[in-house]
Amino acid sequence: MKVLVINAGSSSLKYQLLDMDTEKVLAKGLAERIGIDGSNVSYQPAEGEKIVVEEPLKDHKDALDIIIEKLTDPKVGVIENIEEIDAVGHRTVHGGEEFAHSVLIDDAVIKTLEEVSELAPLHNPANLTGIRAMEEILPDVPQVAVFDTAFHQTMPEESYLYAIPYEYYEKYKVRRYGFHGTSHDFVSKHAAELVGKDRKDLKIIVCHLGNGASISAVRNGECVDTSMGMTPLEGLIMGTRSGDIDPAIIEYICNKEGLTVEEVNAVLNKKSGVLGLSNHLSSDFRDLDEAAQGGNEYAKLALDTYCYRVAKYIGAYAMAMQGVDIIAFTAGCGENNYAVRAGVCEYLKYLGVVVNDEKLHIRGEDLIVSEPESSVTVMIVPTNEELSIARQTMEVIK
Amino acid sequence: MKVLVINAGSSSLKYQLLDMDTEKVLAKGLAERIGIDGSNVSYQPAEGEKIVVEEPLKDHKDALDIIIEKLTDPKVGVIENIEEIDAVGHRTVHGGEEFAHSVLIDDAVIKTLEEVSELAPLHNPANLTGIRAMEEILPDVPQVAVFDTAFHQTMPEESYLYAIPYEYYEKYKVRRYGFHGTSHDFVSKHAAELVGKDRKDLKIIVCHLGNGASISAVRNGECVDTSMGMTPLEGLIMGTRSGDIDPAIIEYICNKEGLTVEEVNAVLNKKSGVLGLSNHLSSDFRDLDEAAQGGNEYAKLALDTYCYRVAKYIGAYAMAMQGVDIIAFTAGCGENNYAVRAGVCEYLKYLGVVVNDEKLHIRGEDLIVSEPESSVTVMIVPTNEELSIARQTMEVIK
Repeated sequence: MKVLVINAGSSSLKYQLLDMDTEKVLAKGLAERIGIDGSNVSYQPAEGEKIVVEEPLKDHKDALDIIIEKLTDPKVGVIENIEEIDAVGHRTVHGGEEFAHSVLIDDAVIKTLEEVSELAPLHNPANLTGIRAMEEILPDVPQVAVFDTAFHQTMPEESYLYAIPYEYYEKYKVRRYGFHGTSHDFVSKHAAELVGKDRKDLKIIVCHLGNGASISAVRNGECVDTSMGMTPLEGLIMGTRSGDIDPAIIEYICNKEGLTVEEVNAVLNKKSGVLGLSNHLSSDFRDLDEAAQGGNEYAKLALDTYCYRVAKYIGAYAMAMQGVDIIAFTAGCGENNYAVRAGVCEYLKYLGVVVNDEKLHIRGEDLIVSEPESSVTVMIVPTNEELSIARQTMEVIK
Repeated sequence: MKVLVINAGSSSLKYQLLDMDTEKVLAKGLAERIGIDGSNVSYQPAEGEKIVVEEPLKDHKDALDIIIEKLTDPKVGVIENIEEIDAVGHRTVHGGEEFAHSVLIDDAVIKTLEEVSELAPLHNPANLTGIRAMEEILPDVPQVAVFDTAFHQTMPEESYLYAIPYEYYEKYKVRRYGFHGTSHDFVSKHAAELVGKDRKDLKIIVCHLGNGASISAVRNGECVDTSMGMTPLEGLIMGTRSGDIDPAIIEYICNKEGLTVEEVNAVLNKKSGVLGLSNHLSSDFRDLDEAAQGGNEYAKLALDTYCYRVAKYIGAYAMAMQGVDIIAFTAGCGENNYAVRAGVCEYLKYLGVVVNDEKLHIRGEDLIVSEPESSVTVMIVPTNEELSIARQTMEVIK
């Protein structure tokens, strides 16, 4: 069985073709600048050279046509014809309260996705564009929507409700949804496997620390709380997103800077986070590490504040679950950044955590970094959202 | 030595005259509806009947004139003449970064307070009105400003900075200030006394749970973090304030309800909190208790969510301080509400907290409610902001 995984953004499209018998990637790539000058599609077969096709792409279907052409190319392709693709899994950002699980896409699902779009106006319409283009190309192949929000739908009311007028929840569905669900699901499951236990018997905190960052509390295999909210703006400090702030700051900045609420929202999403804290030095933790080591006070401040906030969430979620067995770091920074992991683990000493500093330096592989005597098992678990989407796609079509 | 404590709101003025040799209240009262039809001043001497004077009050000075008249009245008064008032202590909400301690008021201080007013536009101008009226009446008596924010000025950068563009901090002083400082200071000090230790040797979490609610982490006598932010909107769920929300909700509600950002801010301050969560049932915890006991699901939801959020902050602050020796409940709900205290303490079991349920029912007195074997000492400590202001006033004029 072969599954094509599609992650469609507004002007980009990431893809992977996976052989689900082996769970190996056969080929993958990225289409960029769709609908913009200078567009291109990259194609990287598991064995062979990376190819970049520079060609005008007026829409997502143009990009997918090239991708299919390459996948089935007699020379560089990895399949003989498109009939070998058994299913397509679409990363879909917002499933609202409608979708607590992945779902086979039909007209009713598309209609619901359109309705939910106002909760994720930047993401869902792009995801839908990818779905529609794929349906045109492969009308007889099952298409599955896999949601960033679905894994978090098990949260209890006290975690997902905001203390705002209740009718905003009833009328407009304002509540905490949480994101990065495929990652939190994948990592918590794999973390349990790494200690040879069933996820159903564990309390796990997953720290997904990428350019977007979120943290979740997974008790007995179910998410009970997560730091992102109605949108991916809330929670931890991120690359360019503020995470938690006093909500009154928005009106204050509107008035001070003469900005609209939309403009301030854009600042909080795009010019804040460690980028803002570091006085616009960088949103990339490698740059911040280097600058901090070179004595840059803003970079040091950004990193310290970032770690402090992660640690506070871990403390809060250990309280929420009445304990924690495993703390797993994942995503770009969680998998690769020593300074952040070490900074967070310094706080975890309070919980009785003992980590091996040498192991904490290792990057990007499944690894238990805590010592046997540690009260909590701390580990690095590289996430694999594409594989998670492909697996969920398989489950739906079975 | 006698100190008059003044807490001036926009249309109200609370006062207490304290004898600082005994720290007893000589008389206290409240002027209401200043500048509005139906204004009145109440006067309650420590011994004797409460008197209510119903008279038009065009401004705060009118109210203070009546208060002074009653305090010095030959029949019902508690002092012979105004010269017996040695100092006046003014509760002042926002001291910005300028005031980390209480301060003797002079022209320079007033100017700074005016500058800081934009951080607390609803409160500081009212406080200033009280200061100016008092200076007119008692020009030769030292007047002291005691700030709600001052105790929190010891917070480190990683606690007080938001992950927003750094220039917003530099240009507009957008940062966490924290409020209820006189209460957090008073309660943490008194909590240490109750266990016969020096506050400098303890890690204390103070849960100030009134109609406004905030929580602070006090390590070695200094505040290291607190839940209220640039304004008193952030943090815990309150009577009518939302506390923490996804900041993106503001734009969403502006668009959905056709409201301005100022109007949404007003909703978050006045129609949210447990009032909003309980579907507009009540902001008063006594009403919610009763309704919840009667089976009202909204009331139960509001209480559960409230307790959950307090518990998460306690977990976060225990992590921030790397431990906690004392957790103290104070203010209206913290001092008197069994359900909230019991709901929070249920979560604290995870920390090894063991409370005595019978003691948890006792209201409004200094009381250790945890058992001797409890890992953390949990206590009720009634706050006394007026006494705290009077003490700080004494320290300044000494």
